[in-house]
Parts: sequence; C-alpha cells; structure tokens
Amino acid sequence: MSKKYSIGIDFGTKSGRAVLVDVDTGEEVTTSVLEYPNGVIDERLPLEDEEVELGIDWALQDPNDYMKVIYETIPEVIQKAKIAPEQVIGLGIDFTACTMLPVDEKGEPLCNKEKFKNRPNAWVKLWKHHAAQPYANKLNEVAEQREEEFLKRYGGKISSEWLFPKIWQILDEAPDIYEAADRFIEATDWVIMKLTGEEKRNISTTGYKAIWNKESGYPDKKFFKALDTDLENVVEEKLSTDIYDLGKKAGNLKKEIAEKVDLRPDVTVAVANVDSFVSVPAVMVSQPAKMVMVMGTSICHMVIDQKEKFVPGMTGVIKDGILPGYYGYEAGQSAVGDIFEWYISEGIPSYFKKEAADNNMNVYDYLEEKASELKPGESGLLALDWWNGNRSVLVDADLTGMILGLHLNSKPGEIYRALIEATAYGTNKIIRTFEESGVDIDELYACGGLVQKNETLMQIYADVTNKPIKIAASKQTPALGAAMHGAVAAGSKNGGYDDIDEAIQNMAHLMDKEYHPIPENVKIYEKLYKEYEKLHDYFGRGENDVMKRLKDIKQKYE
Amino acid sequence: MSKKYSIGIDFGTKSGRAVLVDVDTGEEVTTSVLEYPNGVIDERLPLEDEEVELGIDWALQDPNDYMKVIYETIPEVIQKAKIAPEQVIGLGIDFTACTMLPVDEKGEPLCNKEKFKNRPNAWVKLWKHHAAQPYANKLNEVAEQREEEFLKRYGGKISSEWLFPKIWQILDEAPDIYEAADRFIEATDWVIMKLTGEEKRNISTTGYKAIWNKESGYPDKKFFKALDTDLENVVEEKLSTDIYDLGKKAGNLKKEIAEKVDLRPDVTVAVANVDSFVSVPAVMVSQPAKMVMVMGTSICHMVIDQKEKFVPGMTGVIKDGILPGYYGYEAGQSAVGDIFEWYISEGIPSYFKKEAADNNMNVYDYLEEKASELKPGESGLLALDWWNGNRSVLVDADLTGMILGLHLNSKPGEIYRALIEATAYGTNKIIRTFEESGVDIDELYACGGLVQKNETLMQIYADVTNKPIKIAASKQTPALGAAMHGAVAAGSKNGGYDDIDEAIQNMAHLMDKEYHPIPENVKIYEKLYKEYEKLHDYFGRGENDVMKRLKDIKQKYE
Repeated sequence: MSKKYSIGIDFGTKSGRAVLVDVDTGEEVTTSVLEYPNGVIDERLPLEDEEVELGIDWALQDPNDYMKVIYETIPEVIQKAKIAPEQVIGLGIDFTACTMLPVDEKGEPLCNKEKFKNRPNAWVKLWKHHAAQPYANKLNEVAEQREEEFLKRYGGKISSEWLFPKIWQILDEAPDIYEAADRFIEATDWVIMKLTGEEKRNISTTGYKAIWNKESGYPDKKFFKALDTDLENVVEEKLSTDIYDLGKKAGNLKKEIAEKVDLRPDVTVAVANVDSFVSVPAVMVSQPAKMVMVMGTSICHMVIDQKEKFVPGMTGVIKDGILPGYYGYEAGQSAVGDIFEWYISEGIPSYFKKEAADNNMNVYDYLEEKASELKPGESGLLALDWWNGNRSVLVDADLTGMILGLHLNSKPGEIYRALIEATAYGTNKIIRTFEESGVDIDELYACGGLVQKNETLMQIYADVTNKPIKIAASKQTPALGAAMHGAVAAGSKNGGYDDIDEAIQNMAHLMDKEYHPIPENVKIYEKLYKEYEKLHDYFGRGENDVMKRLKDIKQKYE
Repeated sequence: MSKKYSIGIDFGTKSGRAVLVDVDTGEEVTTSVLEYPNGVIDERLPLEDEEVELGIDWALQDPNDYMKVIYETIPEVIQKAKIAPEQVIGLGIDFTACTMLPVDEKGEPLCNKEKFKNRPNAWVKLWKHHAAQPYANKLNEVAEQREEEFLKRYGGKISSEWLFPKIWQILDEAPDIYEAADRFIEATDWVIMKLTGEEKRNISTTGYKAIWNKESGYPDKKFFKALDTDLENVVEEKLSTDIYDLGKKAGNLKKEIAEKVDLRPDVTVAVANVDSFVSVPAVMVSQPAKMVMVMGTSICHMVIDQKEKFVPGMTGVIKDGILPGYYGYEAGQSAVGDIFEWYISEGIPSYFKKEAADNNMNVYDYLEEKASELKPGESGLLALDWWNGNRSVLVDADLTGMILGLHLNSKPGEIYRALIEATAYGTNKIIRTFEESGVDIDELYACGGLVQKNETLMQIYADVTNKPIKIAASKQTPALGAAMHGAVAAGSKNGGYDDIDEAIQNMAHLMDKEYHPIPENVKIYEKLYKEYEKLHDYFGRGENDVMKRLKDIKQKYE
C-alpha cells in the first residue's frame, strides 16, 4: 500500500507555511512558505485608489492573503514530494489568536465589499492589534465591579488582544459595520469554513479568547449589557455557539478548492487550531505534569491536568482547550527572544561585533560562547525580564525591565547571560506558581526558534528550574501538530489515527539531546532566584510602583 | 616694569603638567606636559635585570619620574613664553593624594637604593593602590571597637587609599623597609622637599589622608598599638609633625635645581597642594555656601564653612584643609565620567556609531545631541550611579549600578541621558545631605574635563540640584590653582599677592556662560529624584542587600 500523508498549515504573523507529513513516521517531507502579500497592515490600508491611515497600535491583515497561502503552498508541497493527490488523507491548520474578522451571512469578509473596504474596522484584526486597549480596560473594570466568576479563569484580567474588546471597538467606532456583520469569526475558523463550507468553531479560541467554557458558556447577557446596551445580544446575534473539540472533523474539502490545490475532495479537514496549543502533541505531550514551552520572541507555557485549579496570573484554563479530556492551562512571558534581539541591536558594542567577525562567528554565536564561559552568578548581574511588561504571573503590561549589578568592567557576554537568566527566572516563577496552586510540573518540553540553536540558554533553563528539558525534533512543530490533527480527523479508516495519542506515538519525535540540571549550578541558582523573587515582588506587587510612575511621566510626552 | 609669572605644576595619575601663568591677569601663557616614563606600575617593577611581578590591586610609581617633570616642563614653559628667568616669582605644585613613599634621612626614596629597588614596598604607593584594603578593614574595625572620635570626621570610614593602611602594609609585609624608612612622606611634600631642601608638610594631605586635625592632632598611640604593637610610635618615629597651611612659603628653589630649570634661586616655592582642593580658588571660590565640583572620571565635591559639622558620608572635614580660616569639607562620587566611558565602550551599538559618522560627529557629541532632544523623564529610565561603588554619602564600595525602566524601544540616547541624570541625582544627594547637616550650599562652581564640552550634562545638573552653576574659565584649574598658591607664597613684596583672596580676584576667572535651573524641568526632576532616593535607600541602606550578596557570589570565582 502506498504511503499516506497529512498536510499541516501554520498561519503565522508574517507568513503561512505548509508541511507535508508522512502519517506513519511523522517525517516532514516537503515544506512551502508564502509571505502574506499585504503582511501586517499597521500604517495604511492596502488600497490602490485611496489613502486610509491607521491609528497608533492598529495591526490588521488581509483575509485574502490566507487563501493565497492555501492556493500556493498546498500544490507546492505535493509537487515537490512527487506524490499522488489521493495519498493525502488529512489537512489541519493552526493560527495566531485572537485574530478575528467580521463576515456576512455567506462568510464573505466585510473588507472585501466595496462599501466597507476603506474602513479599518472591516478588516482582520491581528492578535497584536492593541488599539482595543481602552475597551479591555473598561471591560475589566466592569467585570471586577460585577465580580464576574470568569475572571479567575484568566488570571484576573482580559487582554486587549482578545475577542470582546475587539468586537466592542468595532461597535463603538463603526456601528454600521457591527450591524452589517453576520458573524465575528476567528480567522482560523474562517479558513476552515472556506475550505469545507462549514462553520465549526474550535474550542481553543472560543475558550481562551472569547471567555467561554463548557460548564458555563459565555458571560451573561447582563454583563454585556453593562458594557454597552447594544452588546447585550452579541452572543446570540454575532457568534456561533456551535463549538467543536480539537481533532474533530470539520468536513471534507470543497470541490472547487480541491481542484485548485491538486487534492481530492474527500480529504478530511480538521477543526481549526491555535499555533501554541497545537505544538503540545507535536512535542509528544499528552499527559499532565509535562509543561510545554514554545520559545521564541516570547514564551508560551502550557500544561494539562485532570483538575481545574485557579493559578494566579495564568492566561487561561479551559476544559479540553489544549487536548481532549484535560483542563488546559496557558501562561506566558511577553518578551524573551525579543529581549535578546533588543540587546543585539541596541546594546552590543562595535568592538564585540568585530571580535565575532574575527572569530568567523555571527554575533549570536559569539555572545553565546562568551555567556557559556561564565558560571552561575559569575557576572554579578541580575535582571528583571519585563522589557515588554509581565504577562504571567503579574499580568501587568506597565512593568519594565531592569539590570542590577553593573560595574565598570561589565562585559557584553555577562549582560547577555544575565538577560537569559532573567527570562529563566521568569519561567521558574510561572512553574512555581503552578506548583503552589496544585498543578504539578515534573518535566519541561521545549520547541520554537530559541530551542535548537542555543545550548547555553537551554542548560540555564534546566539549572534554574531544576527540571529536565526535552526538545522537539521538529523545527516546525505547529505545522506538524496541525498535520497530526489532520490525521486524527481522517481517522484510522482512512489511514490516519483514531485519537491524538496514537498520532503522538507515530508522528511526534524528540531529539536525543536532553538537558539535565547540573546540581552545583542548581544550588547557586536557588540563591539567585530568591534575589529575583524578592525584586519581582518589590517592583511587581506594589511595594514600589516606580516603574508605573516613570511610565506615567513618560506618557505625558506622547 | 616687566610682567611677573608664577608656575603651577599639576602632578596627575599619568603625567605632569606645568603651566606658566601671568600673575596680574591669570592668563595661562604656556603649557608643557610630560607623561611619566614609568607611568602607573601595576604589573611588574621597571627593572632591567630582574622580573618582580606585582599582586592584584597594586599601583606604584617611580619618584624619579616626578623630578623628570620638573626638569623638562619648567624650562619648556619658560622657553616657549620667551620670558626672562627673573620674571618668574613663584612656583606651586599639586598632586594626587594619598600618594606616598618611604625615604631615608636625606629624603632619598628607598626604591632608589640598590638594596631595596626590587622590593615593591619600597616604591611610591599611588593613590589608587588598593592592595592595602585588608589593613584598612582591620583599622576600621579597631577604630569602631574603640569608638575613636576621628571616625566622624571621615564619614565613618578610613579608606584603603589613605596613609596609615599603606604604612601598615609596609610594616606587615616588609618590616625591614619600615625599619629603614626615616620618614613616610606624601609625594607632593617630597617634591617640595627636593625643590627647597625643606620638609614642610602640607595641612591638606595630613588632615584628609593622615587622620590629623589642628585641635586633636593624630590618633592616639594606644590606637596605633591596638593595630600592631610595632606601630605604636609611628607618628614620632616616621612622620613629620611640622605642618603648614596652604599658600605658605616652603622655601626658595635650591641652587642646583634652579640652574637645571633655567630659574633664579630666589623663586619662592609654596607649600604643596592636593589636586582637587587647589581647584577651589581657581574657580573663584573663597566663601562658604559655594560648592566646587571637579568633574571628570569621578566628581570631587568641596565646600568651606565657618562651623564644623559632621555630615554623614563625607570624605573628610579639616580645619584650614582647603582654604585658611575655614573648615574644608570634601565629598565625592567614585565614578561619573567613567560611567559614560563604560557606556561608550561597552554599550553603544554599531549602528549608532555609524549614524554619528554619517552626521560627521563623534559618538560623544552625537550621544549628547540625542540626549538633549529628550525632556526630563521622557526616557522612562532611572539609574543608580554606583558603577564603582558609592563614595558619598553611603561610603560603600560594594554597591553596584542599576538601570530600570528598560523596554523593547529603549535607545542609546535615552540610556545615556539616564546615566547623566543618575550622576546628577548622586550629586544632589550629597548636596541635600550637607544642607540637612547644617552646611549651606547656594551655588555650584564646576571645573574639570566634563564641564566645558557637555552643555546637556551641565543643564541637567542645574535642573536636578535646582542651583545655578558657574564654570571655570580655565581648562587646567589645578595647575592654575597651584600657580596662584605660588604667587601668594611669593607675596606682594615680590610682585605676588598677600593672600589667596587677592590672587582669586586677579588670577581666577569664570566663563560668561552660566547654567540656571529651568523651572518646569526642576518640577519633574523633583519627582524623579524622589524615586532615586527611594531606590538609593532601598539598595544602599540595608533594606535589600542584593548588590552585596551578588558580589559575594561573584567573588567566589575570583
């Protein structure tokens, strides 16, 4: 019998990536990437005949770009692999979230209509669209006053990146668009709807971004009414309440799409996924006490558990939100790789760059080499990793970064190591908070851009957390995870799998290399972490709100 | 009648600089600089036939280098000015302190003797020789136990840079050299002795560095005995107790020296001076409530007053120590320009250097331009200026630097401005501490390397301290001050002046440019200074000793 394949498509912030995966082995056979032609739209709308500028903190996308990814990358992975269309049994996608758009009753984006195309609120609001912050602030205020139960499932705060602040902004700024919208839909669900003709809302974005859970549903009408009388019926009028677990079949590929992408129409399409969560099975995790870290510009921390616990400062806890049968917990650090990038571009002196070049190394590798020559505590430096605020466990965007211990001989390798250590302390704080709240964590599993290239960083994380770390073999874990969900949706009768555990056993892999805590380092990092914790609480829990006061003064100039 | 001149020679850390000054106008006519041939000796002794390595923290000099400065620079300033030898009426010098050496009964340095030349303890110990730190620690411990009164005149602590820790090191490590020494003498007094044949010990170094004052003399024998029984009679046996006020005549130039330097033997030589203190009259200050700041790699703050007050954390208070008739107070910041140098060399990214070059500017000027474009508080950053510990008012070498408020958009101009502001807050803390202790400060007078080239920095200091700042016209204020003391020692009968006030009126000048506080900036800096003070106390006064604990961990690797 010929080999079977599943295609996973990862819709990132700047591009879409399709990976053709061997269903039996998980081998990633071919890959195709398309940069979104209109990219992140944050200055002006991409119109030919009109100039429409966007305000500060706006970040939009063009939904047609997503379909271009479908039409270009799927044929390419098939052609490159030289396989027959019928060998592809499943298709899964994952997406950034909450990335949402208004559509009409046929599922057509409002920004595609002549009437609305010059209206920013008609376009896709990307996850990092932050212009809804005032609506999030107001929403949190009202939720606190009303002592809404749901707050505790989201670390006490709803983010401006999530669904309802974005919908409220549309209602408030563009009531006619709100009115014209038949649905507000996650982009990930919209793509699946375009592929299958069926709107099957996925549980992840609904749970984590739209304040929903299986037990109690959406927030109460009265809550929405308290926000704005016109929002009272937002759920009934504007949202699907038809919500599906991950790994379920959304439908078959529509005929007209199948023809355009060289696939057969009987390909099974899985319910949509979110990029971070879909990585969990792709690093072989389907059990509690194994924390998955997606390590890139930021870190997303995920763990599943049989019990529902309320952990201070997590991003969310949703039943079945990450894997069926478990409560899925998410937490995060808002800047990690971003801090290192900042340091490389704003803090590395030219002599250091020259030294790197003289050693035939890029600056990253040379920095890592210098950092690796130091022992824990040898730099004398300690930093707080809040260059982009603190997502977990303080949930406070107004906190800022700090370095302490600087002296006239402080060198770039020392500062870089201190920044790595600070991010590791931040992760450790999240882990300890989970543990103190009754969610066990025994091992760490890592994937993402930072993982495979930086051994010093990974060893520091193992030493600081005093936990072993296993590493995903794949460099494209979200796409792999999406393909795994495609294979599960197809099921064993079509050559796929009947559940995600089977898919994990066959398709997911870890690297041989693992990181284990080095006892003498653990001992020193225990001391240093105590220092971090003391400053974390001093600056982060109200003892000295200097960071906020400085920001207040700064903002008067903006 | 032909013009009269005085020569001032400033003995710095790396070189000696002679300036020929017009006694009537203060015009600095000619200058000559000689780098010390043996420089700062901190790796091995400058011996031809033998290899003698120095330990960590040693810093020595060769006394013969000082005489080379005399022999080379004096003839040069006279020849360049094309004046007659008899037109020079006075000579004054100033020096780093405490820079000391052991000499025999003829004033010959022990390091010049065949027997001792390969012994590090026989050479000049430079001010920044820090290898006597263990002796200073022990001395402070004993002084505290015995509740020695003198401690309060020195901010509670005797520095390892001062005389007795250095002498004790010699006694302990090289008792034969201690035995062979007829005198331990400040280098500044030794040069005057070589020039005049007379040992006339100056009050400044005796008071500020040798724990002496007019009322109570040196510490008690019992104190020295408590340190080490062999030190009991150190004062009687090894130190001159013949102490002279500043501006007094030490003697006339010895005939054999005069011949070598093209001067007449009747030139009056003034009692020796210290580099920072001699700058006070050179910036026209001879009254209380006017703080002089010598601003360079570090800042030295000086003020005089009729009353003796004990100001926490000052370096010292000595009657007549800076100007006759007043209590002279000294305080200081151990790193200022050094922090900026650190940032330029370790923190400026290459794109910023390139931008500076593209604008035809050096990095310093470009940084200043960027910093000058910001308003107070606009950077959102706050720093503690402790890159080399804190000299005043905390007197704690183990404190370290900190920057807070960092975020992903923090830019070099912002960081640089935050570092300038931090040093200004440090100066303000010193000023406020003086004021709270009853020593008034109405105006600031500044001289030194940082002053004339950095207008943004000076305006920030005026705004932070809320005090006007006047600027020395001379770029070589210590040498000018030394020449003024030469003119005073010569007296009016020889064409000089009868007191330092007369010399100030005629020879010292200020620039037209003054800096005045800008009220709207003062208002914001009052808020920011409160934030600085809060962190200053939190990290500096024991609430959170994290800096010391980090240093402890770091030092285990050394």
